[in-house]
Amino acid sequence: MSRRYLHVNVNASTPGSHPAAWRSPDANRFGSFDIEHFKQVALVAERGLLNAVFLPDQVSLSQDPSSGPGWGLLDPVVTVAHLSAVTEHIGFIATQTTSYTHPYNIARTFATLDHVTRGRIGLNLVTTMADAAARNFGEKTLPSPSERYARAAEFAEVLIALWDSWEDDALIGDVETGVFADKNRIHAINHSGQYFSVSGPLQVPRSPQGRPLLVQAGGSEQGRDLAARYAEAVFSATQYLSEAQAYYRDLKIRASGYGRDLDSLIILPGVVLFIGGTEEEARRRKRELDELDGDRGLERLAARLGVSVGDLDLDKPLPVDLIDYSFRGSHQSVGFADALRSVALDRTRTVRQILEQGGGLGHRTLIGSPEQIAADFEEWFVSGAADGFNIMVDIAPTGLSAFVDHVVPILQRRGLYRNEYEGRTLREHFGAARPKSAFEGYSQRIEAAAS
Amino acid sequence: MSRRYLHVNVNASTPGSHPAAWRSPDANRFGSFDIEHFKQVALVAERGLLNAVFLPDQVSLSQDPSSGPGWGLLDPVVTVAHLSAVTEHIGFIATQTTSYTHPYNIARTFATLDHVTRGRIGLNLVTTMADAAARNFGEKTLPSPSERYARAAEFAEVLIALWDSWEDDALIGDVETGVFADKNRIHAINHSGQYFSVSGPLQVPRSPQGRPLLVQAGGSEQGRDLAARYAEAVFSATQYLSEAQAYYRDLKIRASGYGRDLDSLIILPGVVLFIGGTEEEARRRKRELDELDGDRGLERLAARLGVSVGDLDLDKPLPVDLIDYSFRGSHQSVGFADALRSVALDRTRTVRQILEQGGGLGHRTLIGSPEQIAADFEEWFVSGAADGFNIMVDIAPTGLSAFVDHVVPILQRRGLYRNEYEGRTLREHFGAARPKSAFEGYSQRIEAAAS
Repeated sequence: MSRRYLHVNVNASTPGSHPAAWRSPDANRFGSFDIEHFKQVALVAERGLLNAVFLPDQVSLSQDPSSGPGWGLLDPVVTVAHLSAVTEHIGFIATQTTSYTHPYNIARTFATLDHVTRGRIGLNLVTTMADAAARNFGEKTLPSPSERYARAAEFAEVLIALWDSWEDDALIGDVETGVFADKNRIHAINHSGQYFSVSGPLQVPRSPQGRPLLVQAGGSEQGRDLAARYAEAVFSATQYLSEAQAYYRDLKIRASGYGRDLDSLIILPGVVLFIGGTEEEARRRKRELDELDGDRGLERLAARLGVSVGDLDLDKPLPVDLIDYSFRGSHQSVGFADALRSVALDRTRTVRQILEQGGGLGHRTLIGSPEQIAADFEEWFVSGAADGFNIMVDIAPTGLSAFVDHVVPILQRRGLYRNEYEGRTLREHFGAARPKSAFEGYSQRIEAAAS
Repeated sequence: MSRRYLHVNVNASTPGSHPAAWRSPDANRFGSFDIEHFKQVALVAERGLLNAVFLPDQVSLSQDPSSGPGWGLLDPVVTVAHLSAVTEHIGFIATQTTSYTHPYNIARTFATLDHVTRGRIGLNLVTTMADAAARNFGEKTLPSPSERYARAAEFAEVLIALWDSWEDDALIGDVETGVFADKNRIHAINHSGQYFSVSGPLQVPRSPQGRPLLVQAGGSEQGRDLAARYAEAVFSATQYLSEAQAYYRDLKIRASGYGRDLDSLIILPGVVLFIGGTEEEARRRKRELDELDGDRGLERLAARLGVSVGDLDLDKPLPVDLIDYSFRGSHQSVGFADALRSVALDRTRTVRQILEQGGGLGHRTLIGSPEQIAADFEEWFVSGAADGFNIMVDIAPTGLSAFVDHVVPILQRRGLYRNEYEGRTLREHFGAARPKSAFEGYSQRIEAAAS
């Protein structure tokens, strides 16, 4: 990688990140379930030279479906496989839970995706946090966080071993001799652990990227550790610059503790964007959606804080002492709980100001002109807070078009953003090395040891 | 359905059904792992107005990968999701095992596929028969057939309940009132059984076909029963007309025992096609592949029979008494074992003739001119042996082009084959009704009972 560029992904899961987005005349109200919505987002994102389209996931209808989309998600594997047929360059990062899937199936599915997309796939591994999901898989409640993370770590180990189980040159296809593959370069993995026992090998050859890019969202102590060991890119929910800088330092130093380069772990805070020609226009765009949303914004904020609506006074700061920081809402990860604590500790803002600034939306929210957005991105990028961003847009695809048409050119002029796709794979977009198979040269080493 | 047409699917999993196909200059030798191969097959199949592209599956590298493709398969879900973006009409039938997946995940994946393909998806449910697969999923050996089928039956029940869990009109999207979905029309399924405990509901709305078309391959007693209860189409491995007629009658009568119409279960024997302008040309096509294959054809036949190569005399009939009918090869289903018994009982043919006729290939093999193929199809179709065929071609896509360009027109002239796609969904291609949700009117019934 000759120079350092901002890495930008877009979250495409709904018709917009504002909860009322689906009610806007600009939105495809059924977009969450309509592949046309995803196609439009992917095509705009590719026009904008983004690294990837990102799809979150969960395995239950964990909230009341009457209030809006976002809780019911299509299977992201199907969506990205389809989208890869209508795009050429952009990558895809699809989420899977390690809690209610098996690593053999996921290794195979993502190796297939990597073959089918010609190396444009990333896998965001999460653990499941909704009790509703547990009840879809024969459990009454979720395992403890430490159980979930122990399973996730072993899951990642199995994935990597399976992805490496065919060496790169194992597929021969010699039509003269009839030797299709070199079985000495295809290895059983014989994994036997606490959660999984997997013989292998995988049933497909090593994929274009060697291994799909591994992504994680590490907020908790265990999540950070998992990310530092296995992830090549990390999503975060940091709200403030200083907090993001601390997180960035912590993750990079943890990764280097595992013998990794500082640049081998890419940190991508999430950010919700409301972009207007001017700040006032952007604020109007947000206000119109807030008005459509009515009282629901306040109700949502109260639910996230674990307080009642009556505890919130629009003209006062948050009732810091009443907030339930153990937080059992839908986004109850430690990362999001920390983000709430940060907002609560910022006693300069009233509830009304927090709502206006998007405090009910979970991720940091930027409302402004293209110049303001670009300046914020640059500040975070150069000051050790971010290697790029996982963006969400107010309404999709119009909010994404605003980013692509107005923010990207500013970033390009400042030398912070690519002018064309320079690589072909998602790893190349991220400047992430293609890993060698852990079995590379294994047969030769065995022979050498025996002689 | 105003008239009865032949239903034809094509198996697209390899560069050809002849084991040496990958070595032919006409084949894409890495086609099993190359999405371009699948695209070509799908586009030729759509040009030929076939019902569907079929993809088999397994979850292990269950055979020596050095000998050829066919044992390592890409994830069919990824493949069909991608192919649906480059086709408009043709359906897809993708296989999944009930043995090493969970019904919540499969219900969601296939509901998503049905949404994304606009109703062009079918699900072929199989139980896993390879010990190598068990060892990828923490088991030393496979469960017994009766365990596997009991799990498969419960799996199908859960799938259907989840697919029905949103009534058709549950998704509202009322932008005025802000009501996105009618939660009274979205139902928990609260399934609690021997193998699965699943609360539901599914997290996506009911899909275009209501339920993806359910397909099964029932050979054994338990497999036939499962097919008769749940399947809408059945693949079989019958070899002879009389055997196929008996199977056809048996399945249809079993289905009617479950209160189903005779026409609601579509029977599709598998058939491998070698098509030439004349029978001699077709035989030459087969002979050239056999020659590429060398001694492997005989070795494969011996392995299938559980005898050694030395037990086989090319100029004598099969050594009926030596054959191991318990058959532990890769295709060790009861259906394939029965097919072998049928071939063995046909004492008129020598080993050489059996090999020439494709006896080592598992499915019935037809070698002939377009007229001969069409005549065979018609005979089976009108005499109560088949509602259509699951075809495999010697080399793909050239063997498929031969079928589409030369056999299909003959069938059309005889009024046995559609002249254009008359429907839009896979169910419509098969003349299969769109099922109502089992929960349809549930809320009203509850209200009526309470008043």
